Amino acid sequence: MIFEIVKSKGLSHKSYFIGSKGAAAVIDPRRDVDIYLDIARAHDMNVELIFETHRNEDYTVGSLELSKLVDAEIHHGAGLDFEYGNPAHEGDIFEIGSLQLEVLETPGHTNESISITVKDKDASDDVYMVFTGDALFAGEVGRCDIYGPGEVEAMAGSLYDSIHEKILPLGEGVIICPAHGSGSVCGAEIRDVDITTVGYEKKTNPLLQKTRKEFVEHKVAERFYIPPYFKRMELNNQQGVDILCRLPQLRSISTVELQEMFESVQVVDVRDPESFAGGHIPGTLNIWNEGIPAFAGWFLNYKTPIVLVDQDGSRIHGVERYLIRLDYDNIYGYLSGGFSSWFKSAGPTETIKTCSVHELREEMEDPSIFLLDVRKEWEWEEERIRGSHNIYLGILEKNLKEVPKDKKIVVYCDSGYKAGVAASILKINGYLDVTNVLGSIMAWKMAGYPTSGD
Amino acid sequence: MIFEIVKSKGLSHKSYFIGSKGAAAVIDPRRDVDIYLDIARAHDMNVELIFETHRNEDYTVGSLELSKLVDAEIHHGAGLDFEYGNPAHEGDIFEIGSLQLEVLETPGHTNESISITVKDKDASDDVYMVFTGDALFAGEVGRCDIYGPGEVEAMAGSLYDSIHEKILPLGEGVIICPAHGSGSVCGAEIRDVDITTVGYEKKTNPLLQKTRKEFVEHKVAERFYIPPYFKRMELNNQQGVDILCRLPQLRSISTVELQEMFESVQVVDVRDPESFAGGHIPGTLNIWNEGIPAFAGWFLNYKTPIVLVDQDGSRIHGVERYLIRLDYDNIYGYLSGGFSSWFKSAGPTETIKTCSVHELREEMEDPSIFLLDVRKEWEWEEERIRGSHNIYLGILEKNLKEVPKDKKIVVYCDSGYKAGVAASILKINGYLDVTNVLGSIMAWKMAGYPTSGD
Amino acid sequence: MIFEIVKSKGLSHKSYFIGSKGAAAVIDPRRDVDIYLDIARAHDMNVELIFETHRNEDYTVGSLELSKLVDAEIHHGAGLDFEYGNPAHEGDIFEIGSLQLEVLETPGHTNESISITVKDKDASDDVYMVFTGDALFAGEVGRCDIYGPGEVEAMAGSLYDSIHEKILPLGEGVIICPAHGSGSVCGAEIRDVDITTVGYEKKTNPLLQKTRKEFVEHKVAERFYIPPYFKRMELNNQQGVDILCRLPQLRSISTVELQEMFESVQVVDVRDPESFAGGHIPGTLNIWNEGIPAFAGWFLNYKTPIVLVDQDGSRIHGVERYLIRLDYDNIYGYLSGGFSSWFKSAGPTETIKTCSVHELREEMEDPSIFLLDVRKEWEWEEERIRGSHNIYLGILEKNLKEVPKDKKIVVYCDSGYKAGVAASILKINGYLDVTNVLGSIMAWKMAGYPTSGD
Amino acid sequence: MIFEIVKSKGLSHKSYFIGSKGAAAVIDPRRDVDIYLDIARAHDMNVELIFETHRNEDYTVGSLELSKLVDAEIHHGAGLDFEYGNPAHEGDIFEIGSLQLEVLETPGHTNESISITVKDKDASDDVYMVFTGDALFAGEVGRCDIYGPGEVEAMAGSLYDSIHEKILPLGEGVIICPAHGSGSVCGAEIRDVDITTVGYEKKTNPLLQKTRKEFVEHKVAERFYIPPYFKRMELNNQQGVDILCRLPQLRSISTVELQEMFESVQVVDVRDPESFAGGHIPGTLNIWNEGIPAFAGWFLNYKTPIVLVDQDGSRIHGVERYLIRLDYDNIYGYLSGGFSSWFKSAGPTETIKTCSVHELREEMEDPSIFLLDVRKEWEWEEERIRGSHNIYLGILEKNLKEVPKDKKIVVYCDSGYKAGVAASILKINGYLDVTNVLGSIMAWKMAGYPTSGD
Repeated sequence: MIFEIVKSKGLSHKSYFIGSKGAAAVIDPRRDVDIYLDIARAHDMNVELIFETHRNEDYTVGSLELSKLVDAEIHHGAGLDFEYGNPAHEGDIFEIGSLQLEVLETPGHTNESISITVKDKDASDDVYMVFTGDALFAGEVGRCDIYGPGEVEAMAGSLYDSIHEKILPLGEGVIICPAHGSGSVCGAEIRDVDITTVGYEKKTNPLLQKTRKEFVEHKVAERFYIPPYFKRMELNNQQGVDILCRLPQLRSISTVELQEMFESVQVVDVRDPESFAGGHIPGTLNIWNEGIPAFAGWFLNYKTPIVLVDQDGSRIHGVERYLIRLDYDNIYGYLSGGFSSWFKSAGPTETIKTCSVHELREEMEDPSIFLLDVRKEWEWEEERIRGSHNIYLGILEKNLKEVPKDKKIVVYCDSGYKAGVAASILKINGYLDVTNVLGSIMAWKMAGYPTSGD
Repeated sequence: MIFEIVKSKGLSHKSYFIGSKGAAAVIDPRRDVDIYLDIARAHDMNVELIFETHRNEDYTVGSLELSKLVDAEIHHGAGLDFEYGNPAHEGDIFEIGSLQLEVLETPGHTNESISITVKDKDASDDVYMVFTGDALFAGEVGRCDIYGPGEVEAMAGSLYDSIHEKILPLGEGVIICPAHGSGSVCGAEIRDVDITTVGYEKKTNPLLQKTRKEFVEHKVAERFYIPPYFKRMELNNQQGVDILCRLPQLRSISTVELQEMFESVQVVDVRDPESFAGGHIPGTLNIWNEGIPAFAGWFLNYKTPIVLVDQDGSRIHGVERYLIRLDYDNIYGYLSGGFSSWFKSAGPTETIKTCSVHELREEMEDPSIFLLDVRKEWEWEEERIRGSHNIYLGILEKNLKEVPKDKKIVVYCDSGYKAGVAASILKINGYLDVTNVLGSIMAWKMAGYPTSGD
Repeated sequence: MIFEIVKSKGLSHKSYFIGSKGAAAVIDPRRDVDIYLDIARAHDMNVELIFETHRNEDYTVGSLELSKLVDAEIHHGAGLDFEYGNPAHEGDIFEIGSLQLEVLETPGHTNESISITVKDKDASDDVYMVFTGDALFAGEVGRCDIYGPGEVEAMAGSLYDSIHEKILPLGEGVIICPAHGSGSVCGAEIRDVDITTVGYEKKTNPLLQKTRKEFVEHKVAERFYIPPYFKRMELNNQQGVDILCRLPQLRSISTVELQEMFESVQVVDVRDPESFAGGHIPGTLNIWNEGIPAFAGWFLNYKTPIVLVDQDGSRIHGVERYLIRLDYDNIYGYLSGGFSSWFKSAGPTETIKTCSVHELREEMEDPSIFLLDVRKEWEWEEERIRGSHNIYLGILEKNLKEVPKDKKIVVYCDSGYKAGVAASILKINGYLDVTNVLGSIMAWKMAGYPTSGD
Repeated sequence: MIFEIVKSKGLSHKSYFIGSKGAAAVIDPRRDVDIYLDIARAHDMNVELIFETHRNEDYTVGSLELSKLVDAEIHHGAGLDFEYGNPAHEGDIFEIGSLQLEVLETPGHTNESISITVKDKDASDDVYMVFTGDALFAGEVGRCDIYGPGEVEAMAGSLYDSIHEKILPLGEGVIICPAHGSGSVCGAEIRDVDITTVGYEKKTNPLLQKTRKEFVEHKVAERFYIPPYFKRMELNNQQGVDILCRLPQLRSISTVELQEMFESVQVVDVRDPESFAGGHIPGTLNIWNEGIPAFAGWFLNYKTPIVLVDQDGSRIHGVERYLIRLDYDNIYGYLSGGFSSWFKSAGPTETIKTCSVHELREEMEDPSIFLLDVRKEWEWEEERIRGSHNIYLGILEKNLKEVPKDKKIVVYCDSGYKAGVAASILKINGYLDVTNVLGSIMAWKMAGYPTSGD
């Protein structure tokens, strides 16, 4: 048996390649599908089946792309009217060499969510592993808010039942393969491991210790932001998108060219916040590379060409993949030679201030400071630096009226990266004195400084 | 948590890299340790601990090598007097970031065999996985014959107890990481999967369905060959060997040079049997590349320089690693340009005949044929082609008197590869008319032809 | 300045990537253009110009493919009516960063052949290098027979003038970058070096030592075969072909599937001749992997799906590229697991005999032998093994009536590889007793055995 | 013939691998010799000869390392008493397959400098290429100041004679392979090309247009700094150093560990200047990664362990190689997780200001500014921003008394990178208000702002 976990960083997405005797299935493929083709080639296998555990909302799935390149069948849950592929129902069985895959309907995250069990018929009739999609993660369970607040209670009950009546009864020794890992926007507290088991989750997953009532209450109380791009991803994944065939070749853009096209492109600087702070092109947005999967969708539109700025080019190719997974086919190019070629060519530069938590601690009482916390509302409510004001990063630009123009704006988040994004937005919007607190509340607490909360 | 399985083909050896928060442990490292250094570098980790689950007998372990390159501590079971490293006892605990590793003494394969459990203290106090060494495999358990036939019964009882009293009680959801996979000489029927669980093994492992009495009887009845190199590996692994630092740069040897040095080197042709059959250098041994880990130790000595012959060079580097893992530091070089450079330079060539099972079927009654089965004695006893004589490949050369010189020798094994080794040995020893049955008994049975057995 | 030579083995084709200050040109791109995209990305460059030195006849050029992926302009000689790209005339000048490229019309190989000189204006106004296409090679010049025998004399004169009036006067220190290296079908005696200079060629190239009259006579006397696929390549390169976007994912085909589809596919065994001899699928054609670029076009049609057979899969991907360069979009798949999976599944097998030159020498007088030389007619005329009959490999199948069915056919070529192709053709056509002379005339001569000639 | 150029970035060092028929020579190998072993393996060759064109002074040569790993002979010029290898004299001839290498004594850069010509005897008796070491570069010639100012005139005459009497007479078509490319400290104005020819240099190299008298005057007037590490490299290369065997595995160091060991290590931050400016560990030296080969030797000692700080780890491995080439075996480790792990762990941070040339232009008249130019003395003399003071970066720390402590220090260099090094040195030495001019004089001039000069 061949079993490979394909992890997509940033998205914290996990897809799976499973094969036996020359035939393979892929579960929840990402849009840049070359990696599945490479695995298939390395193991002398044909991808014959593609499963989607649910209509994903945080990225554009690669099922159609992969299906067209290798002529494989797509199957997804029957609970939604997809415009491609085939509906899979409870109990549907598929064969891949000696492996038998069987569909379990496990609604709760979405109505059409399915799990897929795997038996190795050469070994036994017992279930060996289960792909749980966004139903059950390591240490967490899926979001229940996708259909809006009015549906959370019903979905949470449904999810509880799916887990307790379908997945856990499979047996403690069954290996669990979820669709996301630690850091995903699809689950708050996912543990950082590649693999878990029913038995281990039953013992350690805090959500599985709750009664149905407690579970539903917990999910109803849970809060998430729904980024604007979720709608587009959902539509993409329901209707299917055009195939890419290959990643576009990004254009290498000189300083002069960038200056000429500046007004008609979206420039994103993918460096770390302290690099951006030390010098950047005026008027550009800063989203560090690993922040692209979670934050590009809040700020970038799907029409205007996107131009990337990096330090030395090492991040461009990764960011290209991140953007393609979010359906940003409007990526156009990158600044040739990185930021240094800009300043060597006499391009104008600006800076942002940074400070350590120790410096913040010393200047906190300064009345000219406006301390801005851009973490999630409920994180701020729970624990914050005293005197801070909260506007979540994703909605900052729409709420700038709450940020005074005549004060020194000191921004923090959990560690300083999202604060860097916020700082760049403030600069774009005319705030002149902006400081990013490097390390933010993570360092603040590590230094032993006091926090407050509701 | 970082968890990587490092598989060594041919040996079917599995070692593991496990890390958390910058610190890592390696379990049963192989001798060419570059892969662990690469993983450590990729994940920004220091290897701080090395564990040996037991004193391996089928390869030379890389603990000392790795230890010297990264300054890590070695720990192995206290039940044997190792000349390096530290003795680990039941209950000894080691910390790697948030991970807690604990030693279980699990004798049975050998006296000093240990298993190592892993807890992720950030998640819970429950055991998450266990490294079981050669105690418990997927679908199998370890050999109990290492100390000789007189000890099998005692060792088997000990192994049963280790499994049932130490490993299985850890909980069904615990992930099992054994030291070998499918194809190893250390276990007859290991299943071809990377990972299993206590729960899945309890349900499906045939050895775990037996009572203690049945288990011991089964192990006592079990038969294995002990290849001659086991002794050397055991000594190496108890005493430690010199460090390699890097793989030797093999010398590229021309046809002329090879002709000159022919009598003072061991020439091994690592091509597939039909390639060797179609043409080869007279007097050379044929062991196909993937057969090196299991068969080199039967035929090659540790003194005379080894020269490899390949088709196009693509197998040389892999075979070099295989040989280094068996401590063959006497690898010297390879025929430059492969076998074709030999015949282009007017080197003499010989051939071996091949036939399909269908051709064999037609000529079986020919009295001038001597049908030789080189599989294991007990495999032959159980099921064979009627009229065949059995001499196990490993002991063929010592038993050539049983093979008539005046007949056509037709050799088969399970699929034709070991028969190729045997055919080359027969040619070296002056047998002129040798035929390899391509596909051997595997194809014979697939074709529906009859077999017999005791 | 970035300067990279992209060599395509087998075709002995050389294309060039040259760039400066972010802009690049590619000369004579091959059809699988990923390598140019990779170089451009590595050096932060945009491919802006593509040049074709002539309408190639031995492969399908990748200009259109590359042009569409990176939006670059194509330029080729004005002497032919291409259906895409732009006509370039003597003296046309193009800028790539500090580089100035200028077109020289250098007809002779074909009418529209051009050379392109490069000056680095940052250094001087002197010519630095010249791309000579198929006009001037290291140690050779281009073929003049493309328009048929009636035109050779005129084309040869034209080529002489192009070389002596256009290229050599550029100056002895000018670096020459030709379109082919050693082994190409486009020039008989090309020297095996990557780079040469006008000065070195003037001293050492035997063709440049001749007067115009001697040169023309030499070219008129020269003989070449024109393989059937040249016509298709020429048409492709004049009209343009559809873009590939990416290499097709070949299907992994099991023994059972191959047996079922056998009659409706073209099976090509890409192993070396002695491997094929040692065992093969009855009825299959043997063209060793590196022979594909030169010989596939003689034997394979462009409609019937092509299935490849290899030993261990290591040659499949390379052969796929070779076939795509020849426009074989009908590649379909490969035998999963290689030839051994065939015989393990009880597929029928056949063999071919091989012998060394020493064995041939001993049996030469045997009247039952028909000794067949499949080298080029003029090679045979010049020097051969006494008693041999000549039929060139490319036209063997059409001339089988010359090969007696009632004799032992012993085939040789230059080293045994083409003889292997011939042997497989003879087997397909019902010849039962076929022997391949490993090493062939190369080994024969090295062994000091006598040859004869006209 | 196999010919590969191995370029070492930063050093702008070029070594060469040349081979024929299984045998190869390496010219001026670098110390991390794995790349030559890889090339040899890829081409089925044995490295049999190693040549040193001269005793290098800017890096530690890898001849002994390579020699010991592959058992090859070392040859270097007879004009110096090396403690290893063999002396090569004018006219000494070596064979590598069909290639004939011949030694030319070409003193001038150093006394023992040799060039090596290559003839391909299979093609002709004419010289094909020449390895010129530090005698003749593309567009430049070697330094003549190695033995001190008193010897320059004699050495320059000697170099002129070597070039005009030995190298240029080889013929215009001869390919020139020098030991350095653009950016080397061993030649001021080397052109950025991989290959040149005698003919092209005769036409375009400005040094070759001079009479002997003009040439010597030019060299006498030329000024270079001799960095302190040159002495050590010279000694290393004359005596030989211990073999490395493999690059050391760097230790991944946590923030806590780094804080503890801070006083007993040399911390080098290898990020770009604007990143360092945006935030850094107080008291650390900033040398951007590509600046390590030229500047590490000015600032780092060979005893105290070296710890590297990067952004995301992508530069660590490259810097390790750079340092090993300079014999810094005291590299110890790197900050795990990069600079961000420092601030996330509440480590203290500091910043440096940056400004664009436009901002500098506006504030130039501010009397509180001290404008510091850290380029080479003669660069400053020739052209500078008005009002600037010059101290060369390499000698800044010894001349800090010239830099006022009570002013705002604004530093520039050619583009901002060396100014970043200077800024970090000023901070370490207690200067509180330091600004780096991004783009420096390069951008200043591009913006059209006025400069002055002597």
